[in-house]
Amino acid sequence: MEPPVKPLKPAELAPSDKALVPFVSVDHMMRLIHHIGVEAMLRDLAGYIEADFRRWELFDKTPRVASHSEVGVIELMPTSDGEAYGFKYVNGHPKNTKEGLQTVTAFGLLADVYTGYPVLLTEMTLLTAMRTAATSAMAAKYLAPKGAHCMAMIGNGAQAEFQTLAMKALLGIDSVRLYDIDSRATEKVARNLAGHGLTVVCCDTAEEAIEGAQILTTCTADKQNATILTDNMVGAGVHINAIGGDCPGKTELHRDIVARAEMFVEYPEQTRIEGELQQMPEDHPFTELWQVVSGSAPGRRDAQQVTLFDSVGFAIEDFSALRFVRDRIRGTEYYTDLDLLADPDDPRDLFGMLMRSV
Amino acid sequence: MEPPVKPLKPAELAPSDKALVPFVSVDHMMRLIHHIGVEAMLRDLAGYIEADFRRWELFDKTPRVASHSEVGVIELMPTSDGEAYGFKYVNGHPKNTKEGLQTVTAFGLLADVYTGYPVLLTEMTLLTAMRTAATSAMAAKYLAPKGAHCMAMIGNGAQAEFQTLAMKALLGIDSVRLYDIDSRATEKVARNLAGHGLTVVCCDTAEEAIEGAQILTTCTADKQNATILTDNMVGAGVHINAIGGDCPGKTELHRDIVARAEMFVEYPEQTRIEGELQQMPEDHPFTELWQVVSGSAPGRRDAQQVTLFDSVGFAIEDFSALRFVRDRIRGTEYYTDLDLLADPDDPRDLFGMLMRSV
Repeated sequence: MEPPVKPLKPAELAPSDKALVPFVSVDHMMRLIHHIGVEAMLRDLAGYIEADFRRWELFDKTPRVASHSEVGVIELMPTSDGEAYGFKYVNGHPKNTKEGLQTVTAFGLLADVYTGYPVLLTEMTLLTAMRTAATSAMAAKYLAPKGAHCMAMIGNGAQAEFQTLAMKALLGIDSVRLYDIDSRATEKVARNLAGHGLTVVCCDTAEEAIEGAQILTTCTADKQNATILTDNMVGAGVHINAIGGDCPGKTELHRDIVARAEMFVEYPEQTRIEGELQQMPEDHPFTELWQVVSGSAPGRRDAQQVTLFDSVGFAIEDFSALRFVRDRIRGTEYYTDLDLLADPDDPRDLFGMLMRSV
Repeated sequence: MEPPVKPLKPAELAPSDKALVPFVSVDHMMRLIHHIGVEAMLRDLAGYIEADFRRWELFDKTPRVASHSEVGVIELMPTSDGEAYGFKYVNGHPKNTKEGLQTVTAFGLLADVYTGYPVLLTEMTLLTAMRTAATSAMAAKYLAPKGAHCMAMIGNGAQAEFQTLAMKALLGIDSVRLYDIDSRATEKVARNLAGHGLTVVCCDTAEEAIEGAQILTTCTADKQNATILTDNMVGAGVHINAIGGDCPGKTELHRDIVARAEMFVEYPEQTRIEGELQQMPEDHPFTELWQVVSGSAPGRRDAQQVTLFDSVGFAIEDFSALRFVRDRIRGTEYYTDLDLLADPDDPRDLFGMLMRSV
């Protein structure tokens, strides 16, 4: 039996609370980040990501749903923990930069699994930059050598400042050594990091950048298989945080380093296609990062080991970031309500709602 | 080589046009429908859907990406014609009605394949009701007997008025015979259709409703395999428009009718799981509707044939509806611009954009 058709009261013509979806614009996201503080937010975000890695097994994990064209890709990355459902829309169009557009734009949505109603819509270009850096630093907590205080940052694009500040916020690094094939990119990062309490050294070569660094972060935009780091450059005991190899045919490290390092990955099915792992045979050993975080596998075992976080990004990290934003915008002015969901007083009377709206 | 870092001019701090995504709220959608007129919009929408069925083969077709829970499902339905990419978010939670919420809520997005940038975000609960009805009427143009002027509408829920007016707008029916197990639902539809230029007859049984009708539309909400129409009820020459069987285990027609009728489907892979087709053996014959629309297969062949449109809804119909809305909101006030996409002046300087936003 369906419920009786209730007579409409004028007050019920206004959308109900559940019909309104909180929306965080780019402007709101920037305000939220400043309100919390960049480093504090990177640290808190890493906490959310760490909590979700700890309960990794209960997530509904599916590969990205990709729509490829000759010039780029549009992807949907959904996941769910059984209570909340999240997805990210993200494109990748390397040729966009030449046309004054972003290579990557993203937005995301969080919904309530019990009702199916969306509960958050947010920009995710900035948020993805924050979560990628927070994930790297969270991984480095388990993998970097004790007392690591200096990072080499090779590739000084859009991720560089976020990566650096996340390592400062979570590991307490006090200096960063920058290198990029384009010195103007390095100058940009040095300028942006001024006043953030770090010793910033601009280097002319990758070799110079890694001198004395315990954490080597690579985040270059090269589309081809590149060799940002060669084997003889990497000494014992360092942690390599490889961010830039993130699609088929795009890698950053010489095969010999990958072979020698202890490899840690997010979601093997995806890393095998997109990460440094694509250089290795099928049976190459690796550890899933969630196992380290949840205590079922060791992270760094000794001071001599070379560890490698082969990061490609995964839907669960976006999910953590969406949860974080949902929790932190409550009671703030950093969102607006979108009238996104039709909400007739009687669910069967959608047409009546339409007719009465004149 | 990457482009040089341009010095920032204050004017460039404002989001560019491409960073803003037109958003159509529920309120705007209702205004747009009234602006165009319900019947005119159903007719125009059917034209867009027909055009896309005609070029069916060039679409990137993937099954829905579903996330199931004990109480419902959340689905993403993406597709692309190579120039535009669209997806719909839709949930299905039958238990929601008892809690005063919608069983189904939906929104959709259209993006430019060439840049990956979203170009439209819109509510799709109302729009889905419109496109479902428009699709039914478009199919009936090819499948209903010549001169059909009376429709039986069995199941008087949220789709009933839209279905009726679409058949009026596209086929010129002049009367509708209503039946629902809940007479209050029938009264609701009769009330809503008053003044729309149709003879509306409320019936006490399904048998009474189909008397003299050439088009039999079934759209019931029963979750179980139901028998809304039995074989002896269906005479020669009618067209059955079966809308309500739209998930596994949910059908509306007696197997004997399905066996006897000439069956037309949208996307066989999906209909086999969700439609009346799930009652039939694997080799049961059917015709894909796009083949009829594009002229490569016949629709109705003679006045005696019983035709059956086994509708479950498909992503391409949503894509057509998104195209329609994108085209028709141009130059109107029926949308607002959302600041959804981060747009730094220098794509590499996302952090700088964030810092300068204080």
